[in-house]
Amino acid sequence: MYSVDLNCDLGESFGAYRIGMDEAMIPLITSANVACGFHAGDPAVMHKTVRLCRQYGTAVGAHPGYPDLVGFGRRNMNISPEQAADDLLYQIGALKAFCDLEETPLHHVKLHGALYNQAAKDPALASAVCQVIRALDPDLKLLAQGGTAMQAAAVRAGIPFVCEVFADRAYQSDGLLVPRGSNGAMITDENLAVSRVIRMIREHKVQALDGTDTAVQADSVCVHGDGEKALLFARKIREALQAENIRIHA
Amino acid sequence: MYSVDLNCDLGESFGAYRIGMDEAMIPLITSANVACGFHAGDPAVMHKTVRLCRQYGTAVGAHPGYPDLVGFGRRNMNISPEQAADDLLYQIGALKAFCDLEETPLHHVKLHGALYNQAAKDPALASAVCQVIRALDPDLKLLAQGGTAMQAAAVRAGIPFVCEVFADRAYQSDGLLVPRGSNGAMITDENLAVSRVIRMIREHKVQALDGTDTAVQADSVCVHGDGEKALLFARKIREALQAENIRIHA
Amino acid sequence: MYSVDLNCDLGESFGAYRIGMDEAMIPLITSANVACGFHAGDPAVMHKTVRLCRQYGTAVGAHPGYPDLVGFGRRNMNISPEQAADDLLYQIGALKAFCDLEETPLHHVKLHGALYNQAAKDPALASAVCQVIRALDPDLKLLAQGGTAMQAAAVRAGIPFVCEVFADRAYQSDGLLVPRGSNGAMITDENLAVSRVIRMIREHKVQALDGTDTAVQADSVCVHGDGEKALLFARKIREALQAENIRIHA
Amino acid sequence: MYSVDLNCDLGESFGAYRIGMDEAMIPLITSANVACGFHAGDPAVMHKTVRLCRQYGTAVGAHPGYPDLVGFGRRNMNISPEQAADDLLYQIGALKAFCDLEETPLHHVKLHGALYNQAAKDPALASAVCQVIRALDPDLKLLAQGGTAMQAAAVRAGIPFVCEVFADRAYQSDGLLVPRGSNGAMITDENLAVSRVIRMIREHKVQALDGTDTAVQADSVCVHGDGEKALLFARKIREALQAENIRIHA
Repeated sequence: MYSVDLNCDLGESFGAYRIGMDEAMIPLITSANVACGFHAGDPAVMHKTVRLCRQYGTAVGAHPGYPDLVGFGRRNMNISPEQAADDLLYQIGALKAFCDLEETPLHHVKLHGALYNQAAKDPALASAVCQVIRALDPDLKLLAQGGTAMQAAAVRAGIPFVCEVFADRAYQSDGLLVPRGSNGAMITDENLAVSRVIRMIREHKVQALDGTDTAVQADSVCVHGDGEKALLFARKIREALQAENIRIHA
Repeated sequence: MYSVDLNCDLGESFGAYRIGMDEAMIPLITSANVACGFHAGDPAVMHKTVRLCRQYGTAVGAHPGYPDLVGFGRRNMNISPEQAADDLLYQIGALKAFCDLEETPLHHVKLHGALYNQAAKDPALASAVCQVIRALDPDLKLLAQGGTAMQAAAVRAGIPFVCEVFADRAYQSDGLLVPRGSNGAMITDENLAVSRVIRMIREHKVQALDGTDTAVQADSVCVHGDGEKALLFARKIREALQAENIRIHA
Repeated sequence: MYSVDLNCDLGESFGAYRIGMDEAMIPLITSANVACGFHAGDPAVMHKTVRLCRQYGTAVGAHPGYPDLVGFGRRNMNISPEQAADDLLYQIGALKAFCDLEETPLHHVKLHGALYNQAAKDPALASAVCQVIRALDPDLKLLAQGGTAMQAAAVRAGIPFVCEVFADRAYQSDGLLVPRGSNGAMITDENLAVSRVIRMIREHKVQALDGTDTAVQADSVCVHGDGEKALLFARKIREALQAENIRIHA
Repeated sequence: MYSVDLNCDLGESFGAYRIGMDEAMIPLITSANVACGFHAGDPAVMHKTVRLCRQYGTAVGAHPGYPDLVGFGRRNMNISPEQAADDLLYQIGALKAFCDLEETPLHHVKLHGALYNQAAKDPALASAVCQVIRALDPDLKLLAQGGTAMQAAAVRAGIPFVCEVFADRAYQSDGLLVPRGSNGAMITDENLAVSRVIRMIREHKVQALDGTDTAVQADSVCVHGDGEKALLFARKIREALQAENIRIHA
C-alpha cells in the first residue's frame, strides 16, 4: 500500500501579528514545520502550535531559518556553516523544550526559506546542518528536496531523509524545480497538481517541463498554510489520496 | 565537611561585542550561569561557553532573561507569568541543545536581572517559573536568593533549590539584601566580604546592617564575572575557602 | 463652525506581517499616527504609509513606542526618561526622513501603547517627551489625552497640544477614561458612541459613568484601524459629523 | 596647500556593550561615521556620540548598515535596492534627529561593512543609495572608495563624493584594494603606511602590489577606532601630516 506525508509550514505568527490558519490546517496534515523564532514565530506561538499538533496527532518538526524577522528568512545571508549550525542548534533546542513539556516527540527538521535554498546548493552548509542534526539526535528526520546537496549530506551523515515534493511547482528534467519566475514554473490547475502528486507517489515519476519523465521520490507533499485557497487545496489533496487508497501519515 | 558552590554569570558576549573574562573565570568557579540570547549571549557564544565549561568540569546552568538586549535584561517589564514561562522554556531549551551536543548535563537555572528581581517578589511569576522547570526536568536545580517568593515557589513545586548569597552585599535583619543605592548596601572591604561568606557557610548567619545576626543558607556564592578585579576576588575567595577546608563544588 | 480631527494608528505592518487596512482607512481620516519600527512598522512600511498619506492629504504623525516588537509596545517597561527621550528622537527622526523624501510635513507625535499610558501618569517621563519634541521642532503638535501628565507637560514646554477623545470608551467624572476591564468601560452601541462624540465637540461635555457631566476638550477623535468594523465605524462617524456640519480636518 | 580628512567609524557601542574608544578618538579625527542602530549603536549611544562630535568640532556622518546586529553588519545580505534605500533613509533620519537636537549639521554618509562592499560592486544598489541621499539633501556628502560603482553612481546623481583611502591596505594596479586574506593585503609597517598616505595626498599615487604606480584620489583617510594601537596610529598620522604641512579638516 502506498503512503505519503503531508507537511506544512506553521507557527509563523509573531506577537500581535498573525500568519496562517494553523487551527484549521493542523487537522488536515501529518507533519507540521514549526517556525522557531528567528524568521517567524515566538515562544508563545511555538507553545500553542505544539499543543495543537499534540491534540491532532500531527508530527512536530523544527523549521529553523535565518535571523531575519523583517525579511521572513527569505533573503540570502552569507552565514558561515559553523554559525548556521549554532543557529540551528539554538532553534531546534528551543522548539524541543515545548515538545518535552507537551510530551510530544520532535519528529523532523525542515529548513526555511533562504536557508533551505542555500543549503540545497552548498555542500559545506548542507554538511554542517546534517552533522548537527545527527549529533543532536540520530533519529531526527531531515525533510528536504531530493537531488540536492542536502540529500547527499544526509546520506553521508546517515540521518533519515524524507524527500519532499511540490504539488504546485514544475520540475526540470534533472528532477529539480523550475525556478520561480521562469515560464511555466507554477502549476495553477489544481486537478493537474493533484494528479501529478498521485503519479509521483505511485510511479515515482513526474513529467518535466520539457515533456520528458523524470524520477522523483515522494515521501512528503508540501502543502501551503496561508489563505482560504490553501485550506481548500489541502482538503482536495486529502480526498484524492484517500480515493486512491494512499495512506496519509507522517 | 562544609562545602559551597561558586556561581558566576557568563556567556554574555554577543556577536562582535565582548563582555566578561569567561576563559579566565570558568576554571575558578563551579557553576556557570549561561546567558541564553534574550538579554545577552548568542548561539555561537553559548556553544563556546558550554564547551569551555565541559573542559573545566564547571556545571552549566541556564541564565534566561527578559527579551531586552539593549537594556541587558535589567529593566522591569510587565510580562505575564504565562508569557514569561514560554520565554523561559524557549531559552532553557536553546541552551540544552548545546549541552546535549557537548554531552554536558544542564545542571541548573538562574534567572537574570530584572526577571530575577521581579520573580523574587511576585508569587505568580515565581510559581510559573518553578512549574515550567519542574515540567521540563524535575531534577533541574533552581538557583536563587533565599527568603523570596522564588524559594517558596520552589518548595511548593518540589524542585531542588540552591540558595545563593552575595559576598559584596549587606543584608537586612529579615535576611533580604539592602537595596542597591541605600547607605551601606555594598561591602567594599574584600577581607570583610570573604570572612562574611565563610561565616555564612559555617554558621548559617550573617551580621545584618542593624548589627543583629540573621540566618542565611549559603549553598552558592555569586561571583562577578567582569573586570580584572572580579578575577582577583574569585581567586581570593577560592584560597580562603580552601584554607578553611571548605569544599568548592557545584 | 465646529471642527474636529480624526486620527488613527497606522503603518503597523512589519515585513511579511500585515496589520490594519491602511489603504482603506487613510482616505477616511485626517491624521495618521505612523508606527516607527520599535513596536511595529519597518522602513518599507513607513515609506509606503507616508506616500499614501501624501496622496490623500492626510497629516502624518510619528507614533513611537517601546522597543518591544513581540509585545507590540503594550507591555510597561521601566525605561528612564532620558532613555525614552533618546528612543523617541530616534523614531521621530526616522519617520521624518520619509516625510522629507515625500515632501510631506511631519505634523504631530502621538505615543503608542504602554508608553502612551505611562507618560500620561508619570510627570518626569511626560516632561522628557515634551522637552524633546520642543527641541526638535517647537511647532510639532503633541496628540494625547486631556487631563493627564502629558497635557500638563505640553503646557509647561509650550508645545501645541491636541486633545484626543475616544468614541468607544466610558469616562470617569474626573475626565479620565474608565480603565479597560472595568464594568461599563466600553461603549458598544455605535449610535451612542457617535452622539457622545458630537456632544463632546459641540458642548465640550460627556456623561461620565456615574451619570454626571464632565468637561472634555475634543480636538481629535481616535478611530481604530483594524478590522472591517473599524472601517464601517470610521465611515459612520464621518457621515454623522458632516450631517452636523462639523468640519473634519487635521 | 594640501589637505585631507581623517575619518573613523564610531558610536558602535550597544546597551551594556562597549566597542571603540570614542572619547579618545573623536578629538583626533575630523569626520565621525556614526553607527545608526541596525548593525551597531543605539539611540543613547548615538546621542552621546553626536554630542562629543559637537564638542570637538568633528563632522558627523551617518554610518548605516544591514539590519544584522549579531553579525555586526559584516555578512552579505540579499536585500533589494528599494529595501536598502528605505533602510538607509530610516537610519540617516534617526541620526539626523540627534544632529538637529545638538544643532550640529549632518555632514556625510558612509555605508558600513557588507553594505559598503556590496554597493561598491553593484550599480543598482549604488544608484539606489545615491538617489536617496540626493533626495534627502543634495549637499550631503558620500564617503566611499574611488573607482567603484559607488563613485560612478555619486557622479551620475550629482552628489558630492569624498574619496577615501586606506593606510593599512595594499592596492591593486586598477586602484582597488587587494582583498583581505590575499598575500600582502595588509600594510603592517606603520611608517610605510604613513608615507604611502602622504604620497597619496601629495602625488595622487600609490605603489600597487605589482610594483607599478596607480592613481588614487585621497580626500579622506580611514582610521580604525578600536584598540590602543588604533589610537597610537591616529596620533602618528596626525603628526606626520602636520610635519608635512598638510591641513587636516573634514
